[in-house]
Order: sequence, then C-alpha cells, then structure tokens
Amino acid sequence: MAEIRLQIVEMGQKARRASAALARLSSEAKTRALVAMAGALVENRDMIIRENGRDLEKARELGLSPAMIDRLALNEGTIRGISAGLSEIAALPDPVGKITSMWRRPNGLVVGRMRIPLGVIGIIYESRPNVTADAAALCLKSGNAVILRGGSEAIQSNLAIAKVLQGVLLNLSLPEAAIQVVPITDREAVHEMLQLEEFIDVIIPRGGEELIRAVVRDSRIPVIKHYKGVCHVFVDAGADLDMAVRICLNAKTQRPGVCNAMETLLVHEDIAGGFLPAAAGELRKAGVALRGCEKTREILPDAEAATEADWYAEYLDLVLAVRVVRDMDEAVAHIEKYGSLHTEAIVTRSYERAQRFLAEVNSSTVLVNASTRFSDGFELGLGAEIGISTTKLHAFGPMGLEELTTTKFIIYGNGQVRT
Amino acid sequence: MAEIRLQIVEMGQKARRASAALARLSSEAKTRALVAMAGALVENRDMIIRENGRDLEKARELGLSPAMIDRLALNEGTIRGISAGLSEIAALPDPVGKITSMWRRPNGLVVGRMRIPLGVIGIIYESRPNVTADAAALCLKSGNAVILRGGSEAIQSNLAIAKVLQGVLLNLSLPEAAIQVVPITDREAVHEMLQLEEFIDVIIPRGGEELIRAVVRDSRIPVIKHYKGVCHVFVDAGADLDMAVRICLNAKTQRPGVCNAMETLLVHEDIAGGFLPAAAGELRKAGVALRGCEKTREILPDAEAATEADWYAEYLDLVLAVRVVRDMDEAVAHIEKYGSLHTEAIVTRSYERAQRFLAEVNSSTVLVNASTRFSDGFELGLGAEIGISTTKLHAFGPMGLEELTTTKFIIYGNGQVRT
Repeated sequence: MAEIRLQIVEMGQKARRASAALARLSSEAKTRALVAMAGALVENRDMIIRENGRDLEKARELGLSPAMIDRLALNEGTIRGISAGLSEIAALPDPVGKITSMWRRPNGLVVGRMRIPLGVIGIIYESRPNVTADAAALCLKSGNAVILRGGSEAIQSNLAIAKVLQGVLLNLSLPEAAIQVVPITDREAVHEMLQLEEFIDVIIPRGGEELIRAVVRDSRIPVIKHYKGVCHVFVDAGADLDMAVRICLNAKTQRPGVCNAMETLLVHEDIAGGFLPAAAGELRKAGVALRGCEKTREILPDAEAATEADWYAEYLDLVLAVRVVRDMDEAVAHIEKYGSLHTEAIVTRSYERAQRFLAEVNSSTVLVNASTRFSDGFELGLGAEIGISTTKLHAFGPMGLEELTTTKFIIYGNGQVRT
Repeated sequence: MAEIRLQIVEMGQKARRASAALARLSSEAKTRALVAMAGALVENRDMIIRENGRDLEKARELGLSPAMIDRLALNEGTIRGISAGLSEIAALPDPVGKITSMWRRPNGLVVGRMRIPLGVIGIIYESRPNVTADAAALCLKSGNAVILRGGSEAIQSNLAIAKVLQGVLLNLSLPEAAIQVVPITDREAVHEMLQLEEFIDVIIPRGGEELIRAVVRDSRIPVIKHYKGVCHVFVDAGADLDMAVRICLNAKTQRPGVCNAMETLLVHEDIAGGFLPAAAGELRKAGVALRGCEKTREILPDAEAATEADWYAEYLDLVLAVRVVRDMDEAVAHIEKYGSLHTEAIVTRSYERAQRFLAEVNSSTVLVNASTRFSDGFELGLGAEIGISTTKLHAFGPMGLEELTTTKFIIYGNGQVRT
C-alpha cells in the first residue's frame, strides 16, 4: 500500500513539474508534437497490436463479454483512426493565451482575461484504449499535463500507446511526464490518485454511473462529471408532425446506448391523438418498446404501463417512456423533477414557446427543432470532446479544449497605485 | 444531532425549490427587490442595531478582542453603507440570459452559450454582518438562492438582516427561501450543510485560512476558495525607480492586512544597489520591518535575515521579505516555488520582459507597473466581489456576478437530425 502511494505521489510531482513547462510551450511546439505522435502511432502499430493482444488474451481467459472485448480490440484500422484523431487535434486552434476580453478602467489600467491551462488533469476511464491517445492529445494541446488511469483490462494497450507518445516527447525534448499512464492496476492506485489535491487540479472520470459515483465519493480533487443522461423531447401542440417523428426517431434510435439519446417523450395533449400513432409506428419499426402514462395508453393501448421509476430511467436501450402533458408548463415541470440536466429538446412551430423553452429549461443543452443527439462537442462545433458535465461548476455540457483552461487577469499599468 | 440534520436538509430543499423560480425572474423584478431591500435596511435600522447590541453584549462577556468587536458592530452609518452597497448591486447589469457567443454550424444549427445561475450557493463566513446583506444581494442579482452561515458571534445581527430582506421578498411575492440564514450556531450545522450536494451547488467560504481548510476537508460540495495571498512585486533592472518605490510602498502599506498586499519584494541585482536604499527608506518610514536575503543585507545591513519560512509567509502585517535575484527567470522561479497563485506584479521599462512576465506567471492576477492592491473585483471593474479564487476551476482571481453563473448551450434548429 505505502509503495503504491509513493509511486502515485511521484507521478503527481512529476506531472506538476511538467505542467509549468507545458504552460509555456508555443502553439507550434504543441502542434509539431501532436503531428509526430499521430505518425508514431501508425509506425509503431505492430508493437501496439502485440501488446493489445496480451490484453485480449487475458480478457478471453477472464471470460469478458464479446462487447467488452470488441471495445478493447485494436487493429491497423482502429490505430489509423486514433492517429487521424490526433492529426485533427493538432490542427485545432490553441486555446492558451487567448484574450477573452479586455477593457480600460477610469484610472487608465487596461485589464484583460487570458486563457491559461488548468495544470494537471487526471483522467479515470474504462476499457477503450483510444481514450488514452485522445485524452492525452487534448491535454497536451491545451498545455496541461495528464495522468491517465484506464481500466485494468486495457493496461498493456494503454502502456504501449503511452510509450509511443512519450517517445515523441523525449525526441522533441519536451517533458516526458506531460503524459503518464498509471502502471498499477490495483484499485488502491485510483484512491491514492484522488488524494493528490496538491498535484492534480481536476479529475475527469469517463465511464458508467457507478464508476463516476465512486470517484466523486473518494476524491479530494474537484471532479467534472456527468452521472447520466435522461434526455427529453417535448412535442408541442401544433408541431410539424413529420419533423417531430423524424427528430424523435433519431433521438431514440440513431444510437440508443449513449447519454444524449432520448429516454422520455413528452407530448402535448392537443396533438397526442394525431402524433402518437404516427410516432409509435416508426419507433416500433425500429424495435423500440414503449412505456406510457395512462393517457398515452388510451391512444396506444399496446404500450406497457409506465411506473414512477420509468420517468427517472436512463435505459440506454430501445425503450422509451412516453407521457402526455397538459401544456408546456407541465412538460417543463416534468423535466425539472425527473431530468438529469443533460439535454432537452422542444419540437414546436410557436416562436413564443421556443423562446420560453430555451430560457426556462436549464439543462446543459437545450434545443429547438433538432435531435438531442447533437449534444456533443464535435456536433456543437467545439472541435473536440474531452467529456460532458451535468454539474454547473466550471463547465456545463459538452467540454472541448477551452474547458481544459481557465483565465487569469492580466493588467497593463503605468504606475497606478490605490488611494 | 439528527434534529440539526433535518433542519439543514429542509433549508436545502427550500433553497433548491426557490432557485428554480429565481432563475426565471426578470431583471426588473430582481432590481426592484434589491432597491426595496436597500430601503428596508435603513427603515429597520433600529431593530437591526438592537439585535446587533445583543451580539455585542455577548461578545464583551466572552472577552472578544476589540478588533473583533469593532468588525461586529453596526450603527446607523454602517447600515447606510450596507444599504448603499445594495443599491449599487441593484444597478449592475444582470448577468443571467446573456449570450456569451453564438455561431452557425454547417448543417444550419445555430449554437449559442447563455448564462444561467449556478442554482444554490452556500456562503460560510466569519464575523462581519455586512457580508450577510452583500452576499445575499449578489446571489439574488445573479438568480441564485443562498444559504448563509455566519459566525456564531454575529448570529442575532445576521438573523435581523435576513428578516428584513425576507420581508421584502414576501412583500413582492418572491420566494422567501431565496435568502436563508442558518439559525443554528452549533458547528454541526456547518458539517451538515457541507454534505448537501443534492441541494447546494457551490460553497464559498470567506475568512481565514483555517476556516477555509476546515471547509474543504469536510465538504462534499465543490468549494471556491483561496487559502492565502503571498503576493510578489518584482522590480526589474532599468525600472523607473520612483515608480517602483511608489508601487512597493502602496502594495505593502496601503492596507497591509489584506490578501492582495505585497509580502515579498524581488529585486533585480543590477538595480538593487540603487533601489533598495531608497525603497527601504520609504518603507521604514511607514513602519515596515524588512527581512532580507544575504545580498539584500549587504546593501541593507539593518534588515533582519530572512529564513526559508519567510518566503512562504503571508504576514498580513507591516513586515516584508526582500530577495535580490539574478534575473527575471530567477524571479519567476521564486514566484512559482513560494507563491500562492494570487497576485504578482512587475515594475519594468522593458517591453519584452513585461510581455514575458504576463505570459509566464500563471497567478490569478498579473500586473505590469501597477500595485498588487488592484487585484480586487471592484478595482478590476467587475462591479462587485463575492470572493476570490486561487484554484483554477470555475473561477480564478476576483469573482464578480458572472462567476455566480454558468453557461448552457442553446440551439436553434429547423428539423436537423444526426446521420
């Protein structure tokens, strides 16, 4: 135990030291490193695939599910994909040094806010080894050091990827500790990592709700997190029915296993009789099982009866809760009570209700006449996504490179003193 | 114990319910409430002064220091001052609803970021009862509910002020639970408050380092904090000596007991022989005791010898640590090692070093040719100050109304779905 602690503390100290140098790197140096990393991953693909094979062998021995093994597996195609992702990150604008605003005070002081890196970022994640390269690249681009702690089932793959990235850092005389993978699979290592408030500025867990809750409970470091996505679509009276069906079908079925998929459909009672049969037809064709409130079941007698638990449920599956509401106020109150602050959409033709929905629903992403599936860093134009936050501090919603920075005040004076 | 817990949980639930209504209040409604509160405090001054008298009586019985009693005391003048503060907050622009940026995606989606309140804010502070009104007003203006927990020595004063503010809320049919003062002086109440992650979004402690460390240790809610301010002024080679003396004198002596006062002076060796005697003369005239490094003491033999502990010290007093450095790199390295990320200034005539200092020093406020004392929400033009953060998440440096908000994504579509 004490040995694990020492090893993790040492990693933290190294990361902190590296972060000071990283904060000062020029945009060119960071871009050069990321381009070189993209190339090095492809060059070293045989080694990475070999190490990944060791993880796969062990996974099969342990009897992991085919889905988990699939998420874990790397081949030339996936490595080229990871490499392409790094090239894209290399091409993004550097957020560091950007002056977000600047103003002049009556005493002549010119005050500005300048973006700077957060410092050291800890990422705790589950099996996908592509996160190792992707998160490391986003942290490097934003001038942060990173400590990565992936799932034990991907340990050899993660270490292999990190070795390639660190080789590039060394070649370019950049601090090797900018990117570190925790080599210890013991859970104690995560616990020790979460105590390092002196050396790690923020923890970003990526994975299921259980992982995230465990991290929050144990961490002395601020955690940027989202527990779950219970996303709603509200179909308003007078909505374009074709558009509403198209959006609901997309929100529910385009990728049902992700956090921005619709889990509950709210329908204005004035339109329910016309809309629900049409929507249910398409949803059922796509394999979706419906669980409805009483009024829904009057219109769709085949729907199962929804229980209170259904309104809280994040199915992540082809299941949809459906509720008929009296008006938009009831829809908004439902979202407030059962929602997860993730993503909600309204389908409407009413200017006034569109504006009111955008103003009154305080989830991290609120859409008018578009699918909830757009709640994503790439789709919103952030250029990247390091995660998503459904707590309001620091970041709320999909997080891109800017969310890996903070701002400091810079002040140009000419001798001012306070009186 | 269980009873305290229940009472605090109930306050949390009420605050959470109030916060939904507060988030939707119009700017006019908030301004009207704040103007009415400013008036009501003056109207009810006799009651407030009487209740404050009960706190003062108890403070004298307990033998509190004259300084503490002074901080606690309210009279007509201080109440009019608090009232004027509320009128100023009423006149500030409403941060809620502001679109901080907006852009168009290739698929026609228009994506914006809109400021919304954080939700419920917990403030934990020491004796000054003016914080009760001031913090409550800033939270109301930014659409947040607030739970205030002041020092036990000010309990009657705080409850009296809250009663007046809540009276205004009731009169205007606004949720009374928008502003709550914890009526329990038992320390257990703070502990229970810090467990309410479901109902409180952020904790802002205001007080000494000990209070803040205790809050951070105990809190399950994110804490915005600053432990201490070990602020530096670096006087560069070739600096305007008169300006340098003026800035150092102001930074050290204008109000030595506050966190943005200079604690360590760093002097370039090329200028030390000319600058230090002049600066020391003025500083000593103002009663400042100097503790110097060896090189400093060669020039100022009367200065006490500084020990390693002096470089870490936040004196909050007329004491100054002085170190002669070889160049700016050594100054920056000193700040990195011993600083508190609060505020640092350079006095220089060099364009290049001014720019480098601003870029390389990643404290929350970095100044060129101005006193560290400007690191303050009002002085920087934020219009208000709810506190100061020396940790980088969410806010870094002085915090105004905007720092009591977050942003959500709002998206205008016309039927877009993901493919």
